[in-house]
Amino acid sequence: MKRSAERPDAAAVWDVVARVDAGDLESAAALIRVLHAADQADVLAALSTDERRRLLDRIDSAALSSILEFLTPDELEHVAPDVELDRLAEALDDAPAHRAADVLQAISEDAANVVLDQLPHAELVGPLLQHDDQSAGGIMAPEILTLAPHASAQQAIDHLRATPAPTVRDLIYVVDHAGQLLGSVHLHDLITALPSTHLRDLMSDAGPSVTTDTHQEEALQTLQRYGLHALPVVDQSGRLVGVTTADDLLNIAQQEATTDMFRLVGLVDDEALTAPIDTAVRRRLPWLMLNLATAFAAAAVVAAFEGTLARVAALAIFLPIIAGQGGNAGMQVTTLTVRAMALGEFDRHFHRTVLPREIAIGVVTGIALGLLVGAVGWVWQDNPWLGVAVGVSMLATMIVSGLAGLLVPVLLRRTGADPALAAGIFVTTVTDVLGFLFFLGLASLLIDRIA
Amino acid sequence: MKRSAERPDAAAVWDVVARVDAGDLESAAALIRVLHAADQADVLAALSTDERRRLLDRIDSAALSSILEFLTPDELEHVAPDVELDRLAEALDDAPAHRAADVLQAISEDAANVVLDQLPHAELVGPLLQHDDQSAGGIMAPEILTLAPHASAQQAIDHLRATPAPTVRDLIYVVDHAGQLLGSVHLHDLITALPSTHLRDLMSDAGPSVTTDTHQEEALQTLQRYGLHALPVVDQSGRLVGVTTADDLLNIAQQEATTDMFRLVGLVDDEALTAPIDTAVRRRLPWLMLNLATAFAAAAVVAAFEGTLARVAALAIFLPIIAGQGGNAGMQVTTLTVRAMALGEFDRHFHRTVLPREIAIGVVTGIALGLLVGAVGWVWQDNPWLGVAVGVSMLATMIVSGLAGLLVPVLLRRTGADPALAAGIFVTTVTDVLGFLFFLGLASLLIDRIA
Repeated sequence: MKRSAERPDAAAVWDVVARVDAGDLESAAALIRVLHAADQADVLAALSTDERRRLLDRIDSAALSSILEFLTPDELEHVAPDVELDRLAEALDDAPAHRAADVLQAISEDAANVVLDQLPHAELVGPLLQHDDQSAGGIMAPEILTLAPHASAQQAIDHLRATPAPTVRDLIYVVDHAGQLLGSVHLHDLITALPSTHLRDLMSDAGPSVTTDTHQEEALQTLQRYGLHALPVVDQSGRLVGVTTADDLLNIAQQEATTDMFRLVGLVDDEALTAPIDTAVRRRLPWLMLNLATAFAAAAVVAAFEGTLARVAALAIFLPIIAGQGGNAGMQVTTLTVRAMALGEFDRHFHRTVLPREIAIGVVTGIALGLLVGAVGWVWQDNPWLGVAVGVSMLATMIVSGLAGLLVPVLLRRTGADPALAAGIFVTTVTDVLGFLFFLGLASLLIDRIA
Repeated sequence: MKRSAERPDAAAVWDVVARVDAGDLESAAALIRVLHAADQADVLAALSTDERRRLLDRIDSAALSSILEFLTPDELEHVAPDVELDRLAEALDDAPAHRAADVLQAISEDAANVVLDQLPHAELVGPLLQHDDQSAGGIMAPEILTLAPHASAQQAIDHLRATPAPTVRDLIYVVDHAGQLLGSVHLHDLITALPSTHLRDLMSDAGPSVTTDTHQEEALQTLQRYGLHALPVVDQSGRLVGVTTADDLLNIAQQEATTDMFRLVGLVDDEALTAPIDTAVRRRLPWLMLNLATAFAAAAVVAAFEGTLARVAALAIFLPIIAGQGGNAGMQVTTLTVRAMALGEFDRHFHRTVLPREIAIGVVTGIALGLLVGAVGWVWQDNPWLGVAVGVSMLATMIVSGLAGLLVPVLLRRTGADPALAAGIFVTTVTDVLGFLFFLGLASLLIDRIA
């Protein structure tokens, strides 16, 4: 199966960036024009503010408009403030409302208001800025086509001809006089119907919908669970106000997965491999400090048993084994739990059975690993009691790591925090501290037989 | 913002499962009928083989057909073999071809052939079974509407009326006499065009496409990068043979993210919080054993310095700090790298600048953490030379962890393996081994001043 290590367009992007770096703006501007807007967006994102401003001057409004569409929210925050407000207004003139809102969210509120005043569809864009940007209201497209149930297929077609293409171009939504969603009609069914057919006789059931204040992750779960390609968004009174689609939610899914993966190891959300070094350091250091603070907890346990270690230095050999196994087993369970929560599976399937199950798995893997490590400890150090200490504490550590791996994300979520937030750091702390306590405590009790 | 901890339908699913468990099949069958197919699928997935067979007998073909559509590939492998072949053929009778192919891939090849022979659209389903199930050819929908460029809008509409709804119901693909993709026409544009207009004058450019042997992750990257909601799939000769859509690729994106997260900590792909305990143990134990083997490498380093530790037992206190910091910093970089590779960003943006950048970050965070840990070591143990040993080895460990975090996934990928495969285990091994070597080695050199 084909898996290309590098995209062919990557070379072209780097070529333009290199020319800008070399000060050759003329040829860079000529080259960037032939690129796809997605690649043009990459070029802009890779430049410094100065270089970007100079290149932006040579890009026309239409090109700028499509480039803005391909910048991620993170990239927009760097690029959008470098564009003059009049040019921004011109570029967003006929951009989909939720795209325009994304751009306006990347600049200051005052600047956003100046641009908004110049947009012909300000009444669609404005309300989007009111919603939390991680809610269904913040990501929805408000350009939907709505008709009454008594409209005919022919009227719908006439209406379509008179309307600019809405975001979900293949569905017409049927609403009652209060704007409540009744159902939807697919263009395909509209085309194949008799012109006089009422929409109420063509429409499918409304199906699942979400409200504007639903979290984007839950909107994603609903769309995925019910295999939809568009999910209606209603306001608090049940009035249809927008739609969010599989392609928008695909981007959300990738962002949410990235966030979870990053947070598990204590990375903040928008850390990227391209962020400037000082930014990266400022973002990573606080979490490494937190990790350090928790590492000192484990160190304190070891310090408490310094007397035991002074009598048998060989005990230190087994510390990395206890810590390594406990940490890995705990991270396995935490990862499973965080992912199941993100996919909406945790509460649906798991919460009733998962705790006894993880304890059982901890016991079984703990016995297997405990016997193995105990035997190695016995033979290696030629002392059966050392084997007993390391084996039994391995068993106890495996049980604890299953419990901690499960309970850390559950408790984080219960306090209202993200279940993935630095979960890995907390889990390894618990397993390190308790693992060392088991092992060094047991070794202290047996010290006369071990020494 | 609303974030419901539990879905309302979860209770209904558990209610049906409980009734089946209690042997009350009649009322379970009555209850399951009113659930959404997605919830019905959950019930079937949660039952044992025996219970499932008995409940399946009470579900009609139409319901079974929609249930099959909502089962994940993993669930299908448990459920599909429990359905009689004739019923399976009946249920798949008018299922989309790629859905039918998913079901057939979950049963034995012989059984699949028996069912395939009975399907009216066997000529669409059959070829899908030939492709790797992680390739674009394995996930595409072959039901596409293709017309010649000289066809008129009216002919296209007549054609639509005569054709059952294809998967991507809002696009008509325009192909030449050899089946090569020329462009596509949206239904909205078709409806609003004059009936005599040629499709060639209505169509948009073909845009990006993938071949049947493209890996699904790359297809996903292409769709996302270019903001498409449908991505054409062509065969080796460039002939259009199918399409894959944003909603299909959304499922793929979630699967790929899950796989990466799991593999990072040494979990095999289809591990779930519901798998039976013996299955979970069988799947986790080999990776824990691998982790154990690598933990012994770190233990061996400590053992080599047993003499040093015997003189200053307090050195053992700092082992968890070195290991904890190195492991966490390494996992941060590995996670960033694996995710960037999955999103197609690594090669596009990063590979030229990322190595010097990670070294620089390692140096800066290493100096900050080294000074801090060194000072704590000095004050805590009242020995400046111990502070020097722990501080300098912390700096060295942070640099090594950045390098290892980056190079482990890069090297894994270069050997053709998944860059996430047990990457966390390898990275923490490297950081543990080298971190202990730095610290205990340096402490040994300074032992006369520390002791």
